[in-house]
Amino acid sequence: MTVLTNLKYYYLNIGTQGRGEPARLLLHDAGVPFEDIRLEFPDWFALKHEIMNDYPAAALPLLKTGDGEYHGLSGPLMRFLGRELGYDATSKKEARFVEQVSDLVGDWYQDYIRLFFQPDQKDFHNKHFRNLHIERFERLYGHHNDGPYVLGSQITYADFSVYAILRQDRVLESLDKKENPNLYRFVKEFEERKNIKEYIASFPKDEEPIVVPLD
Amino acid sequence: MTVLTNLKYYYLNIGTQGRGEPARLLLHDAGVPFEDIRLEFPDWFALKHEIMNDYPAAALPLLKTGDGEYHGLSGPLMRFLGRELGYDATSKKEARFVEQVSDLVGDWYQDYIRLFFQPDQKDFHNKHFRNLHIERFERLYGHHNDGPYVLGSQITYADFSVYAILRQDRVLESLDKKENPNLYRFVKEFEERKNIKEYIASFPKDEEPIVVPLD
Repeated sequence: MTVLTNLKYYYLNIGTQGRGEPARLLLHDAGVPFEDIRLEFPDWFALKHEIMNDYPAAALPLLKTGDGEYHGLSGPLMRFLGRELGYDATSKKEARFVEQVSDLVGDWYQDYIRLFFQPDQKDFHNKHFRNLHIERFERLYGHHNDGPYVLGSQITYADFSVYAILRQDRVLESLDKKENPNLYRFVKEFEERKNIKEYIASFPKDEEPIVVPLD
Repeated sequence: MTVLTNLKYYYLNIGTQGRGEPARLLLHDAGVPFEDIRLEFPDWFALKHEIMNDYPAAALPLLKTGDGEYHGLSGPLMRFLGRELGYDATSKKEARFVEQVSDLVGDWYQDYIRLFFQPDQKDFHNKHFRNLHIERFERLYGHHNDGPYVLGSQITYADFSVYAILRQDRVLESLDKKENPNLYRFVKEFEERKNIKEYIASFPKDEEPIVVPLD
């Protein structure tokens, strides 16, 4: 685990929105210190060109580890942190399940992030895509019916991504115990984790949805 | 590699469209026989409920291996096949790059697949998202400027996903050698691979874009 020292974590300066939040949640939960660098867009543009040779994917989020290596993109980064920090399943079958859940969060994020560019699609998104994702994750969180995490009592990296997208797509505030008992139980327990509780208390209130003008 | 016997590969019966094609391309290239099962929607619905206990992610594409295990979802499945069949990078740094490229294809697919549900978004997609993805992959395929693959001379699992999305989003038919020299070179060389050449000769001609009615 020695590689996880002198961590610099880069994402856009957009509060808890976008794909930067899952890794922040995991690092806070693990109690691993990191420099939380929130870039304005021109700063990211400059940095990107500076490091592109070493980090050709050139996309955020990005974690630079103490050994000078770049670990980028939420999916691969969460798998890496899961392995390095013990937030992964132990059996192959369960590891596949966690990896699949994490990938399904990626699809939800990509659906949601389209609203940054097309806020007029929000009603359509809520009606068709958001409900579909909520139903899917409600079912996934019932697979180990002892809960509260997707693997049962053991938290894994996928849970951090799920929590982040539930927050991003404003599912948290309207979660109904009767309608979504499994997600409800998950969120309650997750928010009671000591380091998480402290961290989310620092979240900005009433974040306005991001709008990125095109053209 | 003994696990890769008696393979049953499940995806919807929608030709080369959707997220089922990357793994088919890879298995064909590797010369690994598999039963290519193309389901109508009601059949998938029935199968899903039958196997959900063993495969809780319950999403396609899905590969059932000879040991009875389920490997589902394009991202995780391609990483699995990459490892099992030697289509992965050898160094950690390059393996991260391949994993990132593969994840970026996932974002492109998710953007494209929205058109199955909202065909009226096609112009918007073409103008904003498609171009952004093409530019990104043109740059990625120039990182190892000897080409033709994203890692240079070595083909990896990410290349199969990239080829499949280029085809899905109808980039292949208009690829310009001057405008996108790296993607152009990649596609030419990829299509000349012996098993791939044979396989793509069997592709249906003029596939109509999928439309999935909502409500």
